[in-house]
Amino acid sequence: MTVRRGFNFLMTPGPTNIPGRILRAMHRPAIEFQGHEFIEYSRACHQDIKPLFQTKNEVFIYSANGHGAWEAALTNTLSTGDRVLVPETGQFSLSWMEMAETLGITGEYLTNDWRHGIDPDEVETRLVDDKDREIKAVLAVQTDTATGITSDIAAVRLAMDAADHPALLMVDTVASLVTTEFRMDEWGVDVAVGGSQKGMMMPPGLSFTAASNKAQKIGETANLPRNYWDWRKRRGQSHYTWYCGTAPEHLIFGLREAIDMVIEEGLEGAHRRHQWLASAVRAAVEVWAKAGALELNAVVEEQKSNSISTILVADGIDVEQIHTVCRDHFDVALGYGLGQLDGRSFRIGHMGYVNAPMIIATLGCIETVFGTCGIPHGKGGIMAALDSLANDDAVPA
Amino acid sequence: MTVRRGFNFLMTPGPTNIPGRILRAMHRPAIEFQGHEFIEYSRACHQDIKPLFQTKNEVFIYSANGHGAWEAALTNTLSTGDRVLVPETGQFSLSWMEMAETLGITGEYLTNDWRHGIDPDEVETRLVDDKDREIKAVLAVQTDTATGITSDIAAVRLAMDAADHPALLMVDTVASLVTTEFRMDEWGVDVAVGGSQKGMMMPPGLSFTAASNKAQKIGETANLPRNYWDWRKRRGQSHYTWYCGTAPEHLIFGLREAIDMVIEEGLEGAHRRHQWLASAVRAAVEVWAKAGALELNAVVEEQKSNSISTILVADGIDVEQIHTVCRDHFDVALGYGLGQLDGRSFRIGHMGYVNAPMIIATLGCIETVFGTCGIPHGKGGIMAALDSLANDDAVPA
Amino acid sequence: MTVRRGFNFLMTPGPTNIPGRILRAMHRPAIEFQGHEFIEYSRACHQDIKPLFQTKNEVFIYSANGHGAWEAALTNTLSTGDRVLVPETGQFSLSWMEMAETLGITGEYLTNDWRHGIDPDEVETRLVDDKDREIKAVLAVQTDTATGITSDIAAVRLAMDAADHPALLMVDTVASLVTTEFRMDEWGVDVAVGGSQKGMMMPPGLSFTAASNKAQKIGETANLPRNYWDWRKRRGQSHYTWYCGTAPEHLIFGLREAIDMVIEEGLEGAHRRHQWLASAVRAAVEVWAKAGALELNAVVEEQKSNSISTILVADGIDVEQIHTVCRDHFDVALGYGLGQLDGRSFRIGHMGYVNAPMIIATLGCIETVFGTCGIPHGKGGIMAALDSLANDDAVPA
Amino acid sequence: MTVRRGFNFLMTPGPTNIPGRILRAMHRPAIEFQGHEFIEYSRACHQDIKPLFQTKNEVFIYSANGHGAWEAALTNTLSTGDRVLVPETGQFSLSWMEMAETLGITGEYLTNDWRHGIDPDEVETRLVDDKDREIKAVLAVQTDTATGITSDIAAVRLAMDAADHPALLMVDTVASLVTTEFRMDEWGVDVAVGGSQKGMMMPPGLSFTAASNKAQKIGETANLPRNYWDWRKRRGQSHYTWYCGTAPEHLIFGLREAIDMVIEEGLEGAHRRHQWLASAVRAAVEVWAKAGALELNAVVEEQKSNSISTILVADGIDVEQIHTVCRDHFDVALGYGLGQLDGRSFRIGHMGYVNAPMIIATLGCIETVFGTCGIPHGKGGIMAALDSLANDDAVPA
Repeated sequence: MTVRRGFNFLMTPGPTNIPGRILRAMHRPAIEFQGHEFIEYSRACHQDIKPLFQTKNEVFIYSANGHGAWEAALTNTLSTGDRVLVPETGQFSLSWMEMAETLGITGEYLTNDWRHGIDPDEVETRLVDDKDREIKAVLAVQTDTATGITSDIAAVRLAMDAADHPALLMVDTVASLVTTEFRMDEWGVDVAVGGSQKGMMMPPGLSFTAASNKAQKIGETANLPRNYWDWRKRRGQSHYTWYCGTAPEHLIFGLREAIDMVIEEGLEGAHRRHQWLASAVRAAVEVWAKAGALELNAVVEEQKSNSISTILVADGIDVEQIHTVCRDHFDVALGYGLGQLDGRSFRIGHMGYVNAPMIIATLGCIETVFGTCGIPHGKGGIMAALDSLANDDAVPA
Repeated sequence: MTVRRGFNFLMTPGPTNIPGRILRAMHRPAIEFQGHEFIEYSRACHQDIKPLFQTKNEVFIYSANGHGAWEAALTNTLSTGDRVLVPETGQFSLSWMEMAETLGITGEYLTNDWRHGIDPDEVETRLVDDKDREIKAVLAVQTDTATGITSDIAAVRLAMDAADHPALLMVDTVASLVTTEFRMDEWGVDVAVGGSQKGMMMPPGLSFTAASNKAQKIGETANLPRNYWDWRKRRGQSHYTWYCGTAPEHLIFGLREAIDMVIEEGLEGAHRRHQWLASAVRAAVEVWAKAGALELNAVVEEQKSNSISTILVADGIDVEQIHTVCRDHFDVALGYGLGQLDGRSFRIGHMGYVNAPMIIATLGCIETVFGTCGIPHGKGGIMAALDSLANDDAVPA
Repeated sequence: MTVRRGFNFLMTPGPTNIPGRILRAMHRPAIEFQGHEFIEYSRACHQDIKPLFQTKNEVFIYSANGHGAWEAALTNTLSTGDRVLVPETGQFSLSWMEMAETLGITGEYLTNDWRHGIDPDEVETRLVDDKDREIKAVLAVQTDTATGITSDIAAVRLAMDAADHPALLMVDTVASLVTTEFRMDEWGVDVAVGGSQKGMMMPPGLSFTAASNKAQKIGETANLPRNYWDWRKRRGQSHYTWYCGTAPEHLIFGLREAIDMVIEEGLEGAHRRHQWLASAVRAAVEVWAKAGALELNAVVEEQKSNSISTILVADGIDVEQIHTVCRDHFDVALGYGLGQLDGRSFRIGHMGYVNAPMIIATLGCIETVFGTCGIPHGKGGIMAALDSLANDDAVPA
Repeated sequence: MTVRRGFNFLMTPGPTNIPGRILRAMHRPAIEFQGHEFIEYSRACHQDIKPLFQTKNEVFIYSANGHGAWEAALTNTLSTGDRVLVPETGQFSLSWMEMAETLGITGEYLTNDWRHGIDPDEVETRLVDDKDREIKAVLAVQTDTATGITSDIAAVRLAMDAADHPALLMVDTVASLVTTEFRMDEWGVDVAVGGSQKGMMMPPGLSFTAASNKAQKIGETANLPRNYWDWRKRRGQSHYTWYCGTAPEHLIFGLREAIDMVIEEGLEGAHRRHQWLASAVRAAVEVWAKAGALELNAVVEEQKSNSISTILVADGIDVEQIHTVCRDHFDVALGYGLGQLDGRSFRIGHMGYVNAPMIIATLGCIETVFGTCGIPHGKGGIMAALDSLANDDAVPA
């Protein structure tokens, strides 16, 4: 067994590093879950989380992970046999569609090479073709953590409007919430799905659906059976039903602190910080790529994610070894490749409770491990990252 | 605002007082949820929780509350239009049946006066009548926290056997797990539902379904749509799907500690402790009852719950005042009456992380508040409780 | 080994029960001890602790226990061969005098029966006799935790004034700070000694000396060698020397929270709460005493301590058994008899983070243990305590 | 105000980064400080800390900082007017000598340029000259945190032996304990002084003196007044006096965990880790030094400290700016220059709970800040550090 000393750098794309403030906020006895104190906490969280989605719509908070919120989004708005259009973005578009199918929905996939974001034109074309309006919803993943690519959600809405199609726009913001601009109301998103354990800096265990009035209204007559997820029970005067039973108090205590932290930094501040750090990561990758054995998966500049960088490796490179040496010798945990990129990529999470020295530490360890493991790479990626951190216009004041 | 000083006595029937050990176990950074360390934690929890249900069957762990586990029990075993038999026990039998109905199941209720446990003869009679075997499951709540009554689950199984009926026996052990004898395998229970925040001493946010092979096999062809709850995904070699996505790590860290604590005390030790403390509560209530204005809701000795005591109050007594003075002057939180007992009862939770001085404190404060509020009561309930604590054969060694 | 479940009731006279708020405040990384953030914390603590002593004088904060602060009080004000007058109050007057003697001071003891407070007339008489002003200081313990007796410090000052004697008045407030009225400036106290782990609700490890200008001025020429304790280094512009080296940051974080908690409740509120709870304890003891085997050590009503009750037991009673059964069966820890009361008394601490249910729990367990152990006692002490709690005028609003 | 997000890198030479394990161990209620449980903790700590000093002698544990332990070392062994020989090492040799002088000891200083360790030959020469054996002790600082220089303590002992001089050898190991080889018994050290907040990874607030039998025996007749520090009270059967009053329980809980962590890693493992990381720091400094504006203070290879690196800066360089930008923009706290190096140096602490990525992060941020602030430096210090980390033979397995 390796004896670990010093900080553990959890640079995976979720769960992410958790601030002490949040852990402390959770370190307290339980309280009456129907008492005044807790209900005030809960109501305030339900209210104060709205700006994180840039919405005035209701946000429903679940004791569940992001898959739970996916299921909530689907079961609250769709009926058996409905059709959804899913533009491929990576592993997460696939998983969300597969979930829909197990629930009795027909999924239709707009395929993609995993190196580009959603093509709005394809969405528009397909919707224009859908004369009978069989498609009830478009399911779009804003940032697919498998690919490190962020799609242009505003453009998807414009495409839907151009097609004059009434389908709901449902967006997975799990990996982009707080790290990346997202304007639910302005962009006309009907349902947004989020989770606690990424940009929110929380332990896993909470997830969210924000729902437009249109989505909620359609849900009134949607016939997929649901109970735990049911939006209709999770609003109204009686707080008891807001969590369909006992509330996950400690995660709510943590959420309160997390929301406060986001408010303190400001959404724009958080976006700038993430962009600043992500740029440094990409600067390093660009140098490393010069030896021809590695490259960033994302190819379009504006689609490169603020939250996560997926790095493709050439055939013959043992990704597992990179992970093992990083973890065991350097206390740095990286994300594994997912789906079709399993074994062909590794991922650096740079979201949530993260700052410049953590990025430098991570890149420095990776560059060292490249050397140790004999992986061809351009030297000095770390130097390029330092330059990027120093010169970036977006350096936080 | 009242300034509180000293321990808060959370004597509600869930969430309950949480040991520092469990809170400390949760106060740590996140780790790779697909890494070796976490998977070992998780596998061990899945294994070591089995004895708490006295089962060798698989137990599925959900990031959700008890209602979530109810839904898991139903959706994994039943098909649209199936009929379930629900012997009334109190508010929780009602809520579980209503949930089944919203999911497309037909519920059939065996009514009860809320002052007695399930009558096995009625169950047998009804099942014998069910010639066409339309009833697919019997849903039984072991301890209904609204009534403070524990039903005889072994007797329910005997009744089902006597009727030679193939229905599944599904039992809600949320309020009885760890506090009260429950022998899943020996008693032939097919599905058991539990939660973290009562006898388990944990924060709310985890729930459990233990499932017999028979239940799992029936589930293979059951047609209620489910995904997050689906048992079929939550077993097998790949740990990733065990939580249908990101695992609620911190609650699992807490669960590990909670299981260890139960193992240390031993299930029998825990049962004896709960019985010892519950007897003291009942001894006090018996004295208080002499003035005719209060009485224990449970009337059959062996049905009086180890976990919770529901106390009925006479017309004209302002229950809210008891709660308010207990909470604001004495830092003791009691449970409110539920359902048809709302406004007509209050409840004392005595489960989980609780010991004799906590019971004495609670009863002493209540007796003082009776005096303060002018509620007629036999004096010296607290003295009877002390005698009970001193004389009970079951005093822990 | 006994498996403990439920709160541990630490009813000893220090350390006392610590609020979660204080433990949480201490659960954080270290910070630069010469950085702006820490210095602000430290300066504010040095300022805000003054009102707790009701003084405008400087308070010096030590990483040490109360004995350390005793030593600081002595070494900062006295010279080799100086004489101090020590009115006996119990074990702590004795220990403080013995410490003075090991440091080269001559101690003079005004003996006492341990059942009464300081007699101001005796102090006056002795000081009047001290024509040559050989006595340089009077060392008075406000509340001696061995005896549970609080002396009248204002009266001691009046006696000194009546004798027109220039000796310093040095007061040990370790067991009375926050629980009992203490007015340093108004009463003309020159040095006050306090500790963190009693009324302040903190972990042990910090202690305090508040020092009048007169005391500090005398100290300028006092010749006892001192360095760590030296007041002269512990003030002035450079914060570095305030702790004579590295500051005990985490205890200061806790102190900040403790001071805030005292401010929230208000000193008067805290005094009233302690008096309210102490009265309940004494009401119980009075009933128990009726069987002739037990009695409160303090005999003068106004000298009965808000912080601690010492209960004398008759010959033949095995005090150790009371402690053992209370601790092992009931999770209640009581204080042992000290000094000449060792084996002849036990003590109930009721100071700091304590409320009515904790007192009820403690008294109820003790009364039960009396029964279990066959100790003769008037029955119903606990009932008298409940009445006291209900009827006391000082019930906090 | 800067909003901080991500780990704070406390790279000062004490206090240092504290592992969560230790903070968790301290996050618990107080217990009876004279009860069995605490006494077992305390006895075990007193025993198990001995190997950290590589001694079988008694170690005394103080609620105090390192200055307190300095005072304990002096007052327990010396008498008024005694002479001590203090080889200059930097700020800490000076402070220790000044403390001795305020306590009535005559200090004699062997001056040094602050860039080299103790010269054993000078010590020998002076002791040989001391025909009347007036020198009662040699006070040696193993690692002076002002200079980042480690002296050869074994050589000092050899020098004393060569002079056949009976003076005590007293060593300050505050900044070297756990990080650097120290063999009290083998090297013939009489008194060793240590603190909690450096290599021990603890919060500040505890300090230690290990004392040989010879030192303790001399102490029996030494006449400096002492009480709180007195070794004679801090051993023997009664545990009560071991801390001269109430024990600092929470720091002892932390100490227990800290000792366990050192045992797990092994002293040799800890030394290797510190050496590995220190080498990387020095590799970076060597590159930065090429522009002529910076250099490592230590000039002799084997005297370069495992714990701390002091970097001298050329005239005209604004050290304060380095600190400010590192702290405010990069969440990295560095140590300020001390004494004659104030304003002329900055220091990097690399001791305690520290690993490779933390060193990389620190060096990367410093190099970036050099650029931002226009400080001439050889580029690529960080690259040299990575090479050092990769190639060092001492890489932990």
